[in-house]
Formats: sequence, structure tokens, C-alpha cells
Amino acid sequence: MSQGAIAGFKASLGAERARDDQYTRELYSRDDTPEARLPAIVLFPHSHEEVQAIVRLAGRHRIPLTARGAGSGNVGGALPVEGGAVLSFECMTQVLEYAPQERLIRVQSGCITGEIDRIASRDGLAYLPDPGSSPYCRIGGNLAMNAGGPHAVKYGVTRDYVLGLRAVTGRGETLETGVRTSKGVVGYDLTRLLVGSEGTLALITEATLRLAPRPAARALLRAAYAQSKDACAAVNRVMQQGFLPSAVEFMDAHALAAVRGMGAANSLPDSSRALLMVEVDGEAADLPRQLELMAVALSGAGLLQIEHGQDEAAIAALWAARKSLSPATKAMAPRKINEDVVVPVPRLCDLLAEIEDIASAERLRIVSFGHAGNGNLHVNFLVDPANPDEMRRAERGLDRLFSSVLALGGTLSGEHGIGSVKRAFVGRELDPVSLHLQRQIKGLFDPLGVLNPGKLFPDD
Amino acid sequence: MSQGAIAGFKASLGAERARDDQYTRELYSRDDTPEARLPAIVLFPHSHEEVQAIVRLAGRHRIPLTARGAGSGNVGGALPVEGGAVLSFECMTQVLEYAPQERLIRVQSGCITGEIDRIASRDGLAYLPDPGSSPYCRIGGNLAMNAGGPHAVKYGVTRDYVLGLRAVTGRGETLETGVRTSKGVVGYDLTRLLVGSEGTLALITEATLRLAPRPAARALLRAAYAQSKDACAAVNRVMQQGFLPSAVEFMDAHALAAVRGMGAANSLPDSSRALLMVEVDGEAADLPRQLELMAVALSGAGLLQIEHGQDEAAIAALWAARKSLSPATKAMAPRKINEDVVVPVPRLCDLLAEIEDIASAERLRIVSFGHAGNGNLHVNFLVDPANPDEMRRAERGLDRLFSSVLALGGTLSGEHGIGSVKRAFVGRELDPVSLHLQRQIKGLFDPLGVLNPGKLFPDD
Repeated sequence: MSQGAIAGFKASLGAERARDDQYTRELYSRDDTPEARLPAIVLFPHSHEEVQAIVRLAGRHRIPLTARGAGSGNVGGALPVEGGAVLSFECMTQVLEYAPQERLIRVQSGCITGEIDRIASRDGLAYLPDPGSSPYCRIGGNLAMNAGGPHAVKYGVTRDYVLGLRAVTGRGETLETGVRTSKGVVGYDLTRLLVGSEGTLALITEATLRLAPRPAARALLRAAYAQSKDACAAVNRVMQQGFLPSAVEFMDAHALAAVRGMGAANSLPDSSRALLMVEVDGEAADLPRQLELMAVALSGAGLLQIEHGQDEAAIAALWAARKSLSPATKAMAPRKINEDVVVPVPRLCDLLAEIEDIASAERLRIVSFGHAGNGNLHVNFLVDPANPDEMRRAERGLDRLFSSVLALGGTLSGEHGIGSVKRAFVGRELDPVSLHLQRQIKGLFDPLGVLNPGKLFPDD
Repeated sequence: MSQGAIAGFKASLGAERARDDQYTRELYSRDDTPEARLPAIVLFPHSHEEVQAIVRLAGRHRIPLTARGAGSGNVGGALPVEGGAVLSFECMTQVLEYAPQERLIRVQSGCITGEIDRIASRDGLAYLPDPGSSPYCRIGGNLAMNAGGPHAVKYGVTRDYVLGLRAVTGRGETLETGVRTSKGVVGYDLTRLLVGSEGTLALITEATLRLAPRPAARALLRAAYAQSKDACAAVNRVMQQGFLPSAVEFMDAHALAAVRGMGAANSLPDSSRALLMVEVDGEAADLPRQLELMAVALSGAGLLQIEHGQDEAAIAALWAARKSLSPATKAMAPRKINEDVVVPVPRLCDLLAEIEDIASAERLRIVSFGHAGNGNLHVNFLVDPANPDEMRRAERGLDRLFSSVLALGGTLSGEHGIGSVKRAFVGRELDPVSLHLQRQIKGLFDPLGVLNPGKLFPDD
């Protein structure tokens, strides 16, 4: 990056918020992926207008600009370009408006997702999307990736809670999208075009989010099975009920071992090879009925044990074990290749069988768990980058996994996105017509290509 | 249209399904707006491939092509261009796939919306968006306009139930968007870019729709008030409850008179000047609790009467009266100018006061009713086109209405769309940056401008 550009950023934000010291650059050189790329400068704007000034400067100097929330993404979406600029939204955490009577909140993009929900909870409301990282991730990252989470099976994903956005396009223009009302059909849906666009079209600076009534109570069932296919059959029965569970989480035998390692599943029968967690929520008085129906649905071939968690402490403890699976698996090997595939719920069983086949054919350790009610499985390849043979086998395994997922009618990513990590595979799912249109849309919003280059799209 | 183009269409579809007789052309010269524009030909494709052939022919001959479902839209979205072509989806009514175990259905665009729900109902499922026209409108029209309906307050709009689309762009290319799973974040959200684009970007030929568990039971409360503002205050209380009603419908004094005229509200106190209908749904056992809470919320200043409708016949009768309001108001004057504005729910009262002011200042008959839980009001100006002075006053009234709606933080259309009727006003809501980007997107999808010209965008 030229000294002129660096000086420009420093003049625009002040040296305190335009940092090019080695320490800061290294800190922002990575996200939750193994790679690191050293940016030349890290920028901490306070306002929409400062973001706009940064984008314009980046355009003038042709500097790659990567937006960043908490850096908790695991597809390299927030990985900077070597020598480029990082724009961190950490200093944009203002709640601009909270209108419980309209069930909406308007926030800057740096707000922590869980904090938004906490504010809403004061008035019996909720911000329902809750990715595993919600205690520390930032809403801007959720919007960029269209984040999901365990409750998506009943409540949907980030996209479903966005009323409107304020953003800066790659041209440095202010773009306002959407409405503040619960309905609105004027013009093309640019709101949802920006959601999930991974910081490649425009930088979202503010979001108007829809809040919902807070579920009054919840309860949990935990069921252990002799085999994965028994659990899959149960998931299908659970998803055929006349109401939606608020979460349906699956763990395979390897994830189960990890949970046991954390001391969280000591009461499970030793022969358990798959675990389901089914959460229901709603009126406290209605929970026994829901639990009973779900317990029946969970019962069937291979069921070894079924437990209820009805008080908040027990539920929270069970969830804590599930939520810690992601970091726990990370600690199980020098490197975790974390996939996030989705198949139609009735094909989950086929997918799990295929994963077992891949693991055995390629001699790989693969741990699978995830949001079974959505058919969304986190498939974690535990590998050692120091073992080149294993890395080659993992590559072959991944290749086969993606082919299988698409053949089963699924998609390569349910909630993590593409980022830099999966972009080589995008062309397998999206046909050339769609990809070409998407590239052209990118060109409209960001003709200079400064916004998060090297992400989402495969190489030309 | 050149004889060559007409011959081309006839060669492509056969003369039976490429009709240029006067009768057919007149039949397809209008939608549910007063205007009529005579197309040169009306086309009835059977398949995606036939739609593609039509778009390519239209491109070659630069023929404006207007897609049409049932023609029940009321903003002129399906009004053809004089001398252009109409593409009717009436012959594309196939259910391509119905997978209740995956809670999805894949249909051709000409399927009748209510029929999709009827199919789903066999398995305890539902297609939840239900615009007033659902017994006869077609899903393609719903997708083009992102249709809403009375249950949107709890269940959302068409956009929220689309998993993926198959379409033909203005270039004549096949575009596949989305997924068949309940989650998926690969690439830009072209699915929702097409939904609500009013046939201007691509012609949707097939849609994969998400089905949901069918609500087990419902019940209705009908509350009469002395004044509109009393009803508005009640709507706010209703929307502050810890759960969502499945519908909150409002009728002003003029709509009430129309309902009485239909013999549907004989039991109401004579002094009633506003009516609310609040529907709740869910488990039968839970309805008494919901009804009780809603009855409390409906109680307050100005409440004159509150009635319960709990058996399906009574509920259906009450709904029938509400659903017939749209045609009934149409019969009340030579012409009905039907607006579809939205304001934040707490501002409904201000909007209704403003409408009364407009009616009195401009000496106009205005009937207002609609989806109060969304702040979505259908404001109907009843006018006589033979009275030029009244038409001028109506124009001034509309102008003032739109200004007020935007000043109250609202939007010009909640569910009807822009079409040809409202496009002059779009520039008041969307800023130049947004409009310019939308026009550029239009240019990418349809560079020759053959798809539904003269819709959605204001004149350049």
C-alpha cells in the first residue's frame, strides 16, 4: 500500500483508528480459519460516513478492503488481502433506535448479536437468530453470511429478520434498502441481495432488525441411539409432527466421544453411537404435550435412552455441551476442516453412511454434528497439515463429500458461507448462467473490485 | 407486431396456443385495473422450454412480453403493452413434485395458489401465504408481486416460502436459483431478487415452495368500536401480546357500512364506527388462553361489542365478509382507486386521521380496511372518471396520502406492488442510488428490455 494511501486513511480517521503497527496488523491477519494474510492497515470507523470515506479512499487507491465483524467466521470471509486494508466494525456498536412497540431495533453493524437479543428480552421480545458464536459475533458478520444457528429449524435465519439496511456500495455511495414496517414490496429486494453477499457488494453499516415475541418456556429431550441410522429415522419422525421443534441437533459417535470427554454425557449408555437433542418451546402449559409427542417420535428402533431437561439449568448445561463441540473438535487435531453441508432431511441417513465410507476409504477422522432438523451437518475433518499424505486423502474425501451432497439434492453451505475456503467448489453447485449474473451484479455494486476480493466467487 | 413474429410464435406453439384473434386479445388486454391495452398475440406455453422459446423470439423481434397469471393483480402489473405479447401461465399448472416428508412442493407457475394449499392439507401441511385472491390467483403472479394476505402478520409473505426458482431471463437463458433444503447460503440470493420483481427480470416457470405444519385450529374475535382511534389503540395492545395473532383485520366506518350492506354485520351496535377481527390459531387446547388474552387486549376505551367465532362455519362467514370487501367496494362506485400503503403499527391512528382529513378536504369517498397487524391499509378512493373535478381532487388526495405515509415511516405498497399504476410515485420512496442500481440490474437480466416494459420503474 502506498504511503499516500496510508496517510489518507490516517488523515481520515486519525492515527488511533487507522493502525499500521505490526501488532495490530497481525491481530487482524486471520479469522477462525488456519490461514493468515497480513494487511497493511486496519481501520476502525465510528460511523456510516467514516465507512463511506474509507471506501472512497480505497477506490481511489485501488486498495482491497475487507470488512470484519468479530472475525469468528470459519470460511475465511474476513481474511484480508495481503497488503490490503481491514475495516473492523468493532467501534460501531451503537443501538440507533429501539422500538419495542414496533418490534424493531436499528443498530450499527458492530453490535454483538447476543447483545441485541439481550436488549429485546427486557420487553419480552427476542432477536431469534442465534449462531453458536452469538455471545461474541457481530451482527454485520451475521448479515454478511446470512448466519443460521440451532433454532433456524423453527425460526429461520438472519435473512428472515432484516427489515432494511444502510450500506456503502463499492462506488462509495450510500444505499438505503427495505422498510421499517413488517411488509413492503416497492422495488427489487436489495435488502436480501446484500444479506449473504459476504461483504462483496456493499458494506452494511446499519440494520433495522425485526424482533419477535420471546418464547415463554422451553424444554429439551436428549435421546441416545445404537446407530446413526436409528437417529436419522427419529429425526424424520420428529420433523413429521404437526408442529415444529425449536431445535433438532444431531451428534455422531465421534462427536459423542468429544462430549463425553467434556464430562457432559456421563449418564449415556456405553453403546450409544448417536445422540439427538430436541428442543421444544412455547407456552409453559403446552410443553408437556409437545414433549410427549416428541418423545413418541424419538422412540423406535435403536433407542437406548431418553432423558428430559426441563429446568433452565439442565437445558443450558446440555446446550453448553453442544455449543462447545465446535471448539472441542478444533482441539482434537492440529487442524479441523469444517464443512457445513445440507441435504434434504430424509437423505441425512444416506449422507452419514457416505461420510462413514469416506472416513474408512480415506483413513480419515471425521466428526459430524449439527442441525439435523434442517438437514444441516457440520462435517469436521480432523487432520494434521504436517502429514501431506493425510492432507491429500482429506482433499479427496472433501471432493467426494461435496459430490455426494449435491447428488443427494443438497447444498454446499447451510450457514457458514463460501468465503475464500470453499470458493473453488461453488461452480459445482451454481450453473454458469447464475454465476455469470452474480459476477455482473458484483460489477454493478463494486466496479473497481475493492470490496473483499477473492471471496465467494471461484477464480475466473 | 410483424407478421414474421406472429408466424414465429404460431410455429413455435401451434396456432391453438398462439392466439391473435380479436376475442382473445381483448380478453387479455386488462387485469384488475380499469385500463385496457390490446396485445397483438396471447401465448399459452406448456413448459419451461416453450417459455424460453417465446422469450428468445420476443428478443429477436424486440417484442414487449408481459407475463400473466390469473390477471387478478390490481396495479396493472399484467397489463400488456399495446401491440405486444402476453404470455399466460394458465396452461402451466403441473405439480412437478410433492414431497410432504421434506415439506416442499415444486410446481409450475400457473398453479392456483389455493390448490397448492389444498394438496398440502392432505398431509397436515399448509402453504401459508393466502392473498384474498387465493382461490383463483396463480402462484406465478404471487411470486412476481411477493403477495401477502391477512395471515402475513404471523406467517409472513410469499418471499418467506420460496426455496428455489427456475426461470428464463430476458436473454432467454435458463436460470436456476436457490435450494430444495430449508437452509442454503451459496452465492447471492437471486431467488429473492426475482420474487417481487414483477416479471421484469426473468419469467419464473417453476417454484420450489416450503410447506409448514397446518395450524390445528383457529378462533376469531370481532370487536366493534365507537371510533377508529379506539380500534387503533386496541391493535397496538393486540400487537404487544407475548404471541402473534394469525390475523388482525381492520375496517373503517365506510367499510363497515359496506359489510352491513352485505348483511354480514347485522348484530353490530348502530354506533359502531370501526371493526377489528382478530384471529388466533394453534393447538385447540391453547385457543381459550389466546382468546382470553386477545379479548383483554381488545377491551378499552370505545369498545362497544366483542363477539367470538369459534366454529369453522362462523369463522368462515366472518372471513367471507372481510374477503368480499374488495369486490364490494369496487361495486360502490364507477371506479375504485385501490391503494395499499403501510405505516408502523403505532402510526395507524395518525394515518387514519389523515385519511379522514383528505376525504373531507377534497370531498372524496374513501373506504379503508386491511391488515392492521402489519400496519397495511387498503385505502380505496371511490370516484367517477366521468367527473373530471372529482378525479383532480382524487389525484391531490393520493398525492397527499403518499406524502403522509412516507412521513410516518411507511411504504407505498405492502403487497400489491407497483406495476404501471404506482410507478410515478416510486421515486418518492426509493432514492436515486437505489433506483439506479435497480435499473442496472434490470439491464443485466433483460438487456433488450422485452420483459414487462413500463412497469415498476418510474419514467426516466
